[in-house]
Amino acid sequence: MLEKSYEGVVYYDDTDAGGVVYYANYLKYCERAKQEFFIEHGCDLFKLHYEGVYLVVKEVKANYKKSLRLGDKFEVYVGVKKLRKASVLLEFEITDGSEAVFTGEILSVSTDGNGNIVKLPECVSNLLT
Amino acid sequence: MLEKSYEGVVYYDDTDAGGVVYYANYLKYCERAKQEFFIEHGCDLFKLHYEGVYLVVKEVKANYKKSLRLGDKFEVYVGVKKLRKASVLLEFEITDGSEAVFTGEILSVSTDGNGNIVKLPECVSNLLT
Amino acid sequence: MLEKSYEGVVYYDDTDAGGVVYYANYLKYCERAKQEFFIEHGCDLFKLHYEGVYLVVKEVKANYKKSLRLGDKFEVYVGVKKLRKASVLLEFEITDGSEAVFTGEILSVSTDGNGNIVKLPECVSNLLT
Amino acid sequence: MLEKSYEGVVYYDDTDAGGVVYYANYLKYCERAKQEFFIEHGCDLFKLHYEGVYLVVKEVKANYKKSLRLGDKFEVYVGVKKLRKASVLLEFEITDGSEAVFTGEILSVSTDGNGNIVKLPECVSNLLT
Repeated sequence: MLEKSYEGVVYYDDTDAGGVVYYANYLKYCERAKQEFFIEHGCDLFKLHYEGVYLVVKEVKANYKKSLRLGDKFEVYVGVKKLRKASVLLEFEITDGSEAVFTGEILSVSTDGNGNIVKLPECVSNLLT
Repeated sequence: MLEKSYEGVVYYDDTDAGGVVYYANYLKYCERAKQEFFIEHGCDLFKLHYEGVYLVVKEVKANYKKSLRLGDKFEVYVGVKKLRKASVLLEFEITDGSEAVFTGEILSVSTDGNGNIVKLPECVSNLLT
Repeated sequence: MLEKSYEGVVYYDDTDAGGVVYYANYLKYCERAKQEFFIEHGCDLFKLHYEGVYLVVKEVKANYKKSLRLGDKFEVYVGVKKLRKASVLLEFEITDGSEAVFTGEILSVSTDGNGNIVKLPECVSNLLT
Repeated sequence: MLEKSYEGVVYYDDTDAGGVVYYANYLKYCERAKQEFFIEHGCDLFKLHYEGVYLVVKEVKANYKKSLRLGDKFEVYVGVKKLRKASVLLEFEITDGSEAVFTGEILSVSTDGNGNIVKLPECVSNLLT
C-alpha cells in the first residue's frame, strides 16, 4: 500500500559522530518523500507554498529499527493513513533496500500564511479517491 | 518536574522557507538538551561516546503546538519519565519563554560499539534516586 | 581586533561520520557569530530581516586548520575587514579555546526583498566609526 | 571540462527563512557531488572511509551568484583543477539548469585515521591520466 517516493545515498552531511544517520535526519528523508509523493499524485506542494498554502507538521511518531551508515542506499515509502477536512496523516517506511530501518507517521494540517487552519487543497483531499 | 537544560536563539541555519524552525530541527534542540541534562546530573555522554557506550534513539513522539521563528528565543526542559535496565524515556518541552511550542518523548537504549544492547551506564540508571 | 561573538559546544548534530564537525557547519557557527556581532554593535539583523533588508552572502573563503570533535568547546571571533556602500567583509576565527581551528572571510551585500542591492543599513555602515 | 556529478531539488531542509538555500548548504551539494564524481572515476571514498583513509577539506572558496529557491532543480558540475602528492583541488559549479548560481573550489588532503597526511589513494592520483 505504501509507494516508493524517494531514494538516496547516505552522504556525510546526514551522518553524525556515531558513524550513522543522525536521528533527526530520517525526518528530512520523510519530508522529501512527502514532497515527491504529492507531486506523483498531482499535487505540487512547492507551488502551493508560493500560493500561501502550507501542510504544517503537527505530530510525529518515529521508530528506529536499524541504523543507516555512511554510503548506504535507502528508499522511502509513503502512504496515506487518514484524511480529514484540514489534515492528512501519512505513514512512512525507510528501508535499506531489504528491510525496514525506520517507520513513522506524520500528521500535517493545512494552514494559510497567517497560520490559520484551512481546508486541505483539493489535490490533497482527493488522494484517497 | 522538568528542568531547563538548554536555551538558544533561532538562527538562520535552523529555519526553512516557511520562515520558521524546520520541524526536524526541534529534535536537534532536544538532543542538545539531553546532553546538557545528563552532564548536569553527573553523566557526560560525550565521555561515554569515546568509551564506546551510546544512548541510541529508538522512538520519538513529537507534538508541534506553535512555530518558532527566526530570531526567537527558546528554552528546552527535560525530565526522566521511565528508567529500565537498558533504556531511558525522556520528556521534553520547548517553550518560547512563555508557552510550550513543542512537547515530545524520546526513548533511548544503551548500546555498545557493535550495536548490542547493554545495561545503562550507572550514572544514567541512578538518575531517579 | 576580532571580538568573541559566539561560543558553543559541538553536539552530535554538527558532527559527521568522521567524528568531527562537518566542514560546512563551521559556516553555521560563523553565521551565528555574525548575528551576535551585529547585535552587540546595535544592529539587529533579525529585525532588519522582518523589515525586508538582508545581508546576503556573496563570497566565502575558509581555511580548516584543525578538526573540532564531538564534545569540544569552541569560540568564534569576528571583525570587520572592509566596509563599502553596499557590502561588508567580515573576518572570522574559530578557536578550541587555545588555538585557531578555522579562519575565514565572508563578504555580504545588502539587498531588499527583490534581491536588488541597496545601501547598507546605517547601523552596519557605522560599524567602523 | 567539468562533469555533471549530482543533481537534485531544493527541499525545505536546505532552505532558510530567506526562502532560499542556506549558504552553507551549497557546500553539502558540492560534497555529495565530490563523492559521485570519484565513484564515477573508479574511486569509492565511502569504501576508503571504512579503510581509514579520508579526503579532508583544508580550503574552500565560494562565490554566490544567484539564489536557489524552494522547489528549484539544480545540477552540480565537478572538475579536477590540481593534483599533488597528498592533495586534490576540485572546482565546482552549481547551475539551476540554465546558468551558474554558485562556483567554488575545494582543496582536500589525504589523511589517515590519526590525522596524518598521507599520499593520495591511487584511484585519486590517477584522475588526470
